[in-house]
Amino acid sequence: MDNKIGKELDTAHGSLELPIFLPVATRGFVKAVPMYKINEMKIKAMISNSMHLALTPGLDKLEERGGINGFTGFEGSYFTDSGGFQILREELVKIDDNGILFQDKKSGNSMKVTPEISSDIQKRIRSDVAMMLDDCPPYGAEDARYKISVKRTYEWGKVFSSIKVPGQKRFGIIQGGFNYEMRKESASLMLSLEFDGFAIGGLKIGEPKELTDRILEKTVSLIPSQYPKYLMGVGDPVSIYQYSGMGVDVFDSTYPTRNARHGYALTENGPVNLKNSKFSMDFSPIENGCECETCRFYSKSALRELLKNEDPSFQYLVTIHNLDFMNRFMNYVRHNRERAKQIALIFSKNHNDVINNVQ
Amino acid sequence: MDNKIGKELDTAHGSLELPIFLPVATRGFVKAVPMYKINEMKIKAMISNSMHLALTPGLDKLEERGGINGFTGFEGSYFTDSGGFQILREELVKIDDNGILFQDKKSGNSMKVTPEISSDIQKRIRSDVAMMLDDCPPYGAEDARYKISVKRTYEWGKVFSSIKVPGQKRFGIIQGGFNYEMRKESASLMLSLEFDGFAIGGLKIGEPKELTDRILEKTVSLIPSQYPKYLMGVGDPVSIYQYSGMGVDVFDSTYPTRNARHGYALTENGPVNLKNSKFSMDFSPIENGCECETCRFYSKSALRELLKNEDPSFQYLVTIHNLDFMNRFMNYVRHNRERAKQIALIFSKNHNDVINNVQ
Repeated sequence: MDNKIGKELDTAHGSLELPIFLPVATRGFVKAVPMYKINEMKIKAMISNSMHLALTPGLDKLEERGGINGFTGFEGSYFTDSGGFQILREELVKIDDNGILFQDKKSGNSMKVTPEISSDIQKRIRSDVAMMLDDCPPYGAEDARYKISVKRTYEWGKVFSSIKVPGQKRFGIIQGGFNYEMRKESASLMLSLEFDGFAIGGLKIGEPKELTDRILEKTVSLIPSQYPKYLMGVGDPVSIYQYSGMGVDVFDSTYPTRNARHGYALTENGPVNLKNSKFSMDFSPIENGCECETCRFYSKSALRELLKNEDPSFQYLVTIHNLDFMNRFMNYVRHNRERAKQIALIFSKNHNDVINNVQ
Repeated sequence: MDNKIGKELDTAHGSLELPIFLPVATRGFVKAVPMYKINEMKIKAMISNSMHLALTPGLDKLEERGGINGFTGFEGSYFTDSGGFQILREELVKIDDNGILFQDKKSGNSMKVTPEISSDIQKRIRSDVAMMLDDCPPYGAEDARYKISVKRTYEWGKVFSSIKVPGQKRFGIIQGGFNYEMRKESASLMLSLEFDGFAIGGLKIGEPKELTDRILEKTVSLIPSQYPKYLMGVGDPVSIYQYSGMGVDVFDSTYPTRNARHGYALTENGPVNLKNSKFSMDFSPIENGCECETCRFYSKSALRELLKNEDPSFQYLVTIHNLDFMNRFMNYVRHNRERAKQIALIFSKNHNDVINNVQ
């Protein structure tokens, strides 16, 4: 186990205690939750998607406000994804050594992204931590394709890391598929560049869990412990507990927010499916002892009514509860691993009561 | 002008300063806004629909919690509508001297309502103010139909007013269509019964404004000033200013909440259509000087992004601003009529920037 007690990541918007979980705010905002509530809940960092931000609201608005924080009012740190992961979301039109051609599914607008363009976009967004553009092949690609990805990601990393942006940390991404030798090569290439931290890319994309675990553990151990280590798109309690034990410091996922919108509440006793009719006459809160406003003011029975009425306050109320749970859980991960382990164990046994397949 | 400075209505959940505006909470909750926010904003009273509450969440849940306030957490007073108005909403299946047969459009469930049943439902809901079941014919009905309505509403009123429910005020409803003699007869019949207040029913249902104004003014003057006088389903600033001047004390409407959900914000300088692209680069709040959380934290530009992204927090943010505006406006109506008049005048000139046709 590589993670050190008290490991931190300094950013322009404050120092982040590691390991940290980043809620997803694709276009700068967490869906359904006003930003002042996010600040009030002391959520210290979130991840947005630089490609989506560039399309809407657009860089002109963000620049006019001195960066994304000025536009959204978030007081914490923004990580921005370069969009490399969108390849797996069928938003990719074309990829070659120069870069990636994307198409936004919503607007239909397409956009060419090179390492320079991705760097410039994230500079203009003024995020605290910018991720390099990488080449992430799907699970099951041929060895030759993974080799291209390692080489290409290195070339793109050279360009991306050579551009310095005051106040912005820049992270490299290690590729190499599911072959340890290739992972080693990618790590060694990336570590030769000047980055502030590293993501382990190309995992949790459909491969069996045993394979994720093996490749992840080995890859993490290749990165010196002074660097923050980021596993993108992963954020359920079971994975966070397990992988933070391997030395992963940064997680992000729509797990708490998307589950909330689908009626799944997270508690220290496991997930609660609010759609279940057994809660119809249950006037207790989602989680006894929880101090979030939802638990202080709403019974499960009342929440179920809001769900039935398709009232948008349902999404708000369950999302803030789930983010409160994640705050507590991450606190255990950092300071009370025994308690985190108990909770992870409960979740591992109740995985049918929650949507696990979220990114 | 009949309304007195300092006129109040005592209810089981506090004394209400009149004139008052009631936000609509059809099934007990204001759409998109958590109840603790409603309490925090010091909203003193709301109106719910007893028929909808009886269908969902159902009376068993409300009774289990000692009444609707226990179920929803609202600290103020609930008015409940008997459902008579639903006649105009095509939820009516059949009406005769015994009562009304309704069908809920959402669930398809139908339900027979008599004055006794309506009384019992509202008793079990434990609302602070219960409205009698009335017979409200559509605009343009024949004289004979209005005569039936006056007689039938009186017969139903006799039954409804004879049932006493501790802690619950009971209001009669004056019908009579658009004929002053019939209004006079209905008022005199209703005033012969023991009610705690009176609604003027059967207005603002499609007739020309001149006719509303004339019949309303005359009907209001028939009710002694010690009674609260309620004009149901009306709540835009222009009407509130004008009709409170005639002596109306209680208003309700989806005007602020429904407009909010459609992107119309209300300000002391008139309505603001947030969908208008001219606000794309406008980084000022909806209303300068407004102290609501929306105006403290969000620019019009940022709100437009939430609208474009179909983020449910947009509905929440604009709804709380509009309710804040209504709080301020009603304060002017009660204590500074000159200011209320200025605002009403601005709204009367900007009626295209807002949805006026709301009930």
